[in-house]
Amino acid sequence: MSTLIALRNDALTAHGDALDSPAKEKAANRGVYNCRSPLLLRRIRQLFGGARVNLLLSLCFLCLVFWFTSRLGSWMGWNPHYPSSAYSPSRGGYTVLINTWKRNSLLKQSVAHYASCSGTDAIHVVWSESDPPSDSLKSYLEKIVLKKSLTAHKPNFMFDLNKEDNLNNRFKPIEDLRTDAIFSVDDDVVVPCSTLDFAFTVWQSAPLTMVGFVPRMHWLDGEKNGVMYYNYGGWWSVWWMGTYSIVLSKAAFFHRKYLDLYTYNMPSSIRDYVTRERNCEDIAMSLLVANATDAPPIWVKGKIYEIGLSGISSLQGHSTRRNKCLNDFISLYGTMPLVSTNVKAVDVRHEWFW
Amino acid sequence: MSTLIALRNDALTAHGDALDSPAKEKAANRGVYNCRSPLLLRRIRQLFGGARVNLLLSLCFLCLVFWFTSRLGSWMGWNPHYPSSAYSPSRGGYTVLINTWKRNSLLKQSVAHYASCSGTDAIHVVWSESDPPSDSLKSYLEKIVLKKSLTAHKPNFMFDLNKEDNLNNRFKPIEDLRTDAIFSVDDDVVVPCSTLDFAFTVWQSAPLTMVGFVPRMHWLDGEKNGVMYYNYGGWWSVWWMGTYSIVLSKAAFFHRKYLDLYTYNMPSSIRDYVTRERNCEDIAMSLLVANATDAPPIWVKGKIYEIGLSGISSLQGHSTRRNKCLNDFISLYGTMPLVSTNVKAVDVRHEWFW
Repeated sequence: MSTLIALRNDALTAHGDALDSPAKEKAANRGVYNCRSPLLLRRIRQLFGGARVNLLLSLCFLCLVFWFTSRLGSWMGWNPHYPSSAYSPSRGGYTVLINTWKRNSLLKQSVAHYASCSGTDAIHVVWSESDPPSDSLKSYLEKIVLKKSLTAHKPNFMFDLNKEDNLNNRFKPIEDLRTDAIFSVDDDVVVPCSTLDFAFTVWQSAPLTMVGFVPRMHWLDGEKNGVMYYNYGGWWSVWWMGTYSIVLSKAAFFHRKYLDLYTYNMPSSIRDYVTRERNCEDIAMSLLVANATDAPPIWVKGKIYEIGLSGISSLQGHSTRRNKCLNDFISLYGTMPLVSTNVKAVDVRHEWFW
Repeated sequence: MSTLIALRNDALTAHGDALDSPAKEKAANRGVYNCRSPLLLRRIRQLFGGARVNLLLSLCFLCLVFWFTSRLGSWMGWNPHYPSSAYSPSRGGYTVLINTWKRNSLLKQSVAHYASCSGTDAIHVVWSESDPPSDSLKSYLEKIVLKKSLTAHKPNFMFDLNKEDNLNNRFKPIEDLRTDAIFSVDDDVVVPCSTLDFAFTVWQSAPLTMVGFVPRMHWLDGEKNGVMYYNYGGWWSVWWMGTYSIVLSKAAFFHRKYLDLYTYNMPSSIRDYVTRERNCEDIAMSLLVANATDAPPIWVKGKIYEIGLSGISSLQGHSTRRNKCLNDFISLYGTMPLVSTNVKAVDVRHEWFW
């Protein structure tokens, strides 16, 4: 063994002597590929050369250092006079408008969560069953709101009762609203409070448009007899093209005035369609807002959690129905008001580089 | 040499036999560190182990593949029916409002560039010299606008003449404006057309606030005799904290109504201050908009080019003067209206992951 080591050392020394010229160095390095370095690394080094791999790794390391130091300031809250949250009770919060239907366990989780968000001024639950919520459910929810809220000013909690099961109910105007901002959300969607507050600041800069987490798109499918036909593009088409024109009301902010516009100004044929089809109220709302603003919505970057197992979108034929809704609504509107965009609102502090 | 090679091969074979157990493998790998793999790689492998380095490299590779395929769609314009640009002449463009002062060569470059952007409906140059622009300059600029414009509808070109050199001139109301959107820009700032159009779509979603490329911040410095004092935070403080409350009018969109508000509604003491100090009109505009909206501006991600050599900001004492402006304006307003935010509007198609 010692002979082997000695001979190997001699070989290394021979390598050392070989470093006197680039050609010899290259030849020497070529020999190194026969060492037991991982195959992938060997291939990379064959492609790029050992020195370049070093450079690449050094650059990656420097990038990490740069990123870390750029984050250090915001992580450390370096400036003791760093302004607190961009909103305060004097600047208003938002009303969380939860649409529910026969999922009381999800509703309880949802209400408990949104009560804990400090921007929540009120929680309204849109109830659409012939039997009103039980006393025990009401009592539970009222208590959980008081318990979970972290602010001195506790959010209001209220059921908005409807006897019929109609998806239009979720966009009925609300009495005694204290905020301009409505956060419309399904009972099985939980948005972390910090993410929600961030989206609220985006909405404050753009109060006329819809600001949400779930983007969708309309794609021109073709023309027939002078009429344009569109496809409803789901998440994967948005991901592929980086373009959207709709944010779904399952998790979106919009101005309270759109509740009035939806209920009283939008063509009643569209509301009747939603009633009949039991679907597409969200597409209707997007078209309404687009028609009013002639502008795109804003997609906010943020992780949201769907805590339910299934909903309408899991039913068979969902895509086909959404396509049909989109085209029927456009036909009923008489115009295609949606505006596509590539904009995304991100939190600067969570970005790699800015 | 052949003996050396043979002996080395024997050593390698000995290594091969050593792979029968993890302990032997580890010992074998330890020996590999004596090969001529780069020092940095050796250290990394010592820290993390060879298998983990392989895993890391594989993950990086997969990330690259994922990113590439996610971009493929938008690069290829995969859907032949992909909607064209989010705006069209029927949806209005923007008026480019260039502030200039005795930099005719820069002005020529600037006008030529913005004339080539398809969203430009008109270009107005704010002229603030006792001598009006020469006929040759006017003629040159009018011709270059027609030559550089790529649209059938050529932008209007006009000088807004002022005899006195006063920074308030740049925010005077404009007659015969055809667009609601004003893109206020210095004569030495060039924003690429695609970036400008992107910022315009952001503004369309948020027409009441300022949407721009150059963020700044106000930091609470302390309190004295019940009065709050603030520091004006430049780029590095925004970079460090990921927070801003101002976007500078050297490259920003805002609604035309703010020209009227600035000129007729803002306290005249602030306009007088700007006249006297020959600085800070941009801070005044930011305060005005914040006061009107109670909302933050929006910073848009995009590379801009400063083609001039120097301006007001390069003068000595610039920071001190900006601090003083900020505090004096807040005192004149009687309130601190600025709202801080961490929001940044990015183009989804240019992001690594979405």
